[in-house]
Amino acid sequence: MKITEVTARDIRFPTSLELHGSDAVHKNPDYSAMYVTIKTDSPGGREGYGLTFTIGRGNEIVMGAAQAYGKMLVGMSVEDIFNDFGSIWRQLAHEEQLRWLGPEKGVIHLALAAIINALWDLWARIEEKPVWRLLSDMSPEKLVSTVDFSYLSDALTKEEALEILKKNAPTKEERIKKLFLEGYPAYTTSAGWLGYTDKQIEDLCNKYLSAGWTRFKMKVGNDLDDDRRRAAIIRKTIGPDRFLAMDSNQRWDVPEAIEYMKGLAEFKPVWIEEPTSPDDVLGHAAISKALAPYGISVATGEHCQNRVIFKQFMQAQGFQYCQIDSCRVGGLNEIIAILLMAAKFGVPVCPHAGGVGLCEYVQHISMFDYICVSASLENRVTEFADHLHEHFVHPVVATNGSYKVPMAPGYSAEMKSQSLEEYEFPDGAVWRRLISEGRFKV
Amino acid sequence: MKITEVTARDIRFPTSLELHGSDAVHKNPDYSAMYVTIKTDSPGGREGYGLTFTIGRGNEIVMGAAQAYGKMLVGMSVEDIFNDFGSIWRQLAHEEQLRWLGPEKGVIHLALAAIINALWDLWARIEEKPVWRLLSDMSPEKLVSTVDFSYLSDALTKEEALEILKKNAPTKEERIKKLFLEGYPAYTTSAGWLGYTDKQIEDLCNKYLSAGWTRFKMKVGNDLDDDRRRAAIIRKTIGPDRFLAMDSNQRWDVPEAIEYMKGLAEFKPVWIEEPTSPDDVLGHAAISKALAPYGISVATGEHCQNRVIFKQFMQAQGFQYCQIDSCRVGGLNEIIAILLMAAKFGVPVCPHAGGVGLCEYVQHISMFDYICVSASLENRVTEFADHLHEHFVHPVVATNGSYKVPMAPGYSAEMKSQSLEEYEFPDGAVWRRLISEGRFKV
Repeated sequence: MKITEVTARDIRFPTSLELHGSDAVHKNPDYSAMYVTIKTDSPGGREGYGLTFTIGRGNEIVMGAAQAYGKMLVGMSVEDIFNDFGSIWRQLAHEEQLRWLGPEKGVIHLALAAIINALWDLWARIEEKPVWRLLSDMSPEKLVSTVDFSYLSDALTKEEALEILKKNAPTKEERIKKLFLEGYPAYTTSAGWLGYTDKQIEDLCNKYLSAGWTRFKMKVGNDLDDDRRRAAIIRKTIGPDRFLAMDSNQRWDVPEAIEYMKGLAEFKPVWIEEPTSPDDVLGHAAISKALAPYGISVATGEHCQNRVIFKQFMQAQGFQYCQIDSCRVGGLNEIIAILLMAAKFGVPVCPHAGGVGLCEYVQHISMFDYICVSASLENRVTEFADHLHEHFVHPVVATNGSYKVPMAPGYSAEMKSQSLEEYEFPDGAVWRRLISEGRFKV
Repeated sequence: MKITEVTARDIRFPTSLELHGSDAVHKNPDYSAMYVTIKTDSPGGREGYGLTFTIGRGNEIVMGAAQAYGKMLVGMSVEDIFNDFGSIWRQLAHEEQLRWLGPEKGVIHLALAAIINALWDLWARIEEKPVWRLLSDMSPEKLVSTVDFSYLSDALTKEEALEILKKNAPTKEERIKKLFLEGYPAYTTSAGWLGYTDKQIEDLCNKYLSAGWTRFKMKVGNDLDDDRRRAAIIRKTIGPDRFLAMDSNQRWDVPEAIEYMKGLAEFKPVWIEEPTSPDDVLGHAAISKALAPYGISVATGEHCQNRVIFKQFMQAQGFQYCQIDSCRVGGLNEIIAILLMAAKFGVPVCPHAGGVGLCEYVQHISMFDYICVSASLENRVTEFADHLHEHFVHPVVATNGSYKVPMAPGYSAEMKSQSLEEYEFPDGAVWRRLISEGRFKV
């Protein structure tokens, strides 16, 4: 089976009109997907679907990068790719000229994620399994063959990775059973966006509570008094002991983060997420140390560019919760490397989700992590945000505060063709209408 | 004066045909420039020129990003920009939707560098000064107003920056005089590319020696025996005491870097440059510590994405030589921030150059650093590579091992219109010929 074509499309949703997704730094996001389709010459015309998430402008830049990677895949044998996926990943991530634009970060790495995730989708569809199952059925040796271990040997060797996987292999069916019974624990971000009124926040907390959700996250960082008022509302509504996390989306300098969070400590946040620049490993370590006496942990990762940054966060104890993003690092292969490091360092992985399709992706990652890598649910909780799922062919199902096990073959990122047509930017019907009404400028 | 248009062009030179610029990681680079022109409504039609350097494929992706930033500038008043350049820089670098693609890294930051550098070029042309002089004539207060200090306050405050600049202000004319007399110290990379034969290396060392060059750099990292043979040739040719640096272009893991360099210690390299991933601050710190007893320092920076990474390199003693790149971080404003931090931490800044136009840029940076920020030449030496200067209207002049003071107004990155036309990719005459001859595929 050979790859015959790779297409990339610019799909955007006008979420800025409603302030869903608003935080201290991203005030008017238009949740978007750079959507990749990998086509093959298989008799049934089998395809793989992948996406990367952005928040609007610049989605076309990522599309350009995906087209550059796509060219490299055309003509390759699918079997050759999956027989040595770790090396192929490296070939793409370190393409001799493109790597200058990173290396392994920013636009080219976001684009690589969509391409790599589409390959995993294709692989899982060929095997007729959901991605979590494809991974869980692999031998430890096969799993590590998908990983590029370069730059990691001072923290994790291939041999140590194998050891982790082998230790957990005999008991994995027990954990699969548990997941089918109980799902994977989740928290909701949908009640705490900055753009919401106090009344909206209270109503949403109550709505999620009565639907069985027990873990919440709120956005903070613009104004301490305002955040204290909002935190008090949420704490009062959800009760004194339920899980509450806070997220400032990179808003502060290091000393500022420490002072600001002391002012929110009485509301007992489990973690402060993205307190400062996502590049600042040492800054996060200083914040972690300063806030530990207040019972507040540090979480970050959704903007962390690759396995080398995550390695340092673990070495320097820069975070206590590792929040990988399914599209920020170079797709599932690199995520597996990070999960393995986290297992070695004993750091719980609580993936970032929301956006477009991120919940669809991370359900596979968290379940695989539990089944094969961490083998633990302690302190693990995966983000859930309840929007835009209606555009997916097999949308995520999260009820009663947990993700249900996805069963459709693939990586769950296939979007409905009607959605793709309507929301393609700038020529889809929705955008043509908004632009003609003067509500958006191109 | 208002900005009326911002254009971006994809200019590439087919350097891969001759293996200039070949190293352990970038084996076949086509040195390229994403070239920006900022047009204004001034009566004389004043323009600013800027570029960012890439090594070929992907230059078009950076062009897409520059167009996105360019749109934001059209209609803005030039005076407003330069009155509050630090804030404008931040507005661009943290544009609410584009920032998701970084933040402050990779493609969007490379593109921002070209845009920002073109603004500095425009400013200097309006003032009819070379950029180094424009900077040197500014008050300390004006200089710090061009800098965005966000994420830096745990390492350098605006007040500390002011103090550094004020301390040096009274003596700056002495240093300007010295620069006119002696130039700024440089080393050459042009003798030590991996793709060259032993004979070529020896001949080039002799050629540069007889032209007055005393400092050399060689590429290493593919094969220790090969590197030992090449190092022996260079050491023998230049003599036992002259400056020799080595550069492995991110080739190794941390433990590998340490072992490999022990095998080259007898050739007395001043530094090993880019021993591992440019993202690995802690890895560089470990290498620095392990190689110190061998008298080898660590240098890095050309692939370091922004001031937050440089901050950590200084905090963790990850390098002993700071090699900023004039186009990798977000242009001159961010470079000023890094120079100020380096002065505080006592780290010499030895800019990366070569490529296309980087030597033209860094001469301004190094001279400004000496005049106003570090006020020292101790352990300072700026890279020089002798290629592609013929495409510039005011090419750099480096003779006798030092950069001469540039006198033309602007930031020296204006390219000849004939070069722009011939080397525009893929439709310039040079590329049309190479493509029609089958020597390049688009």
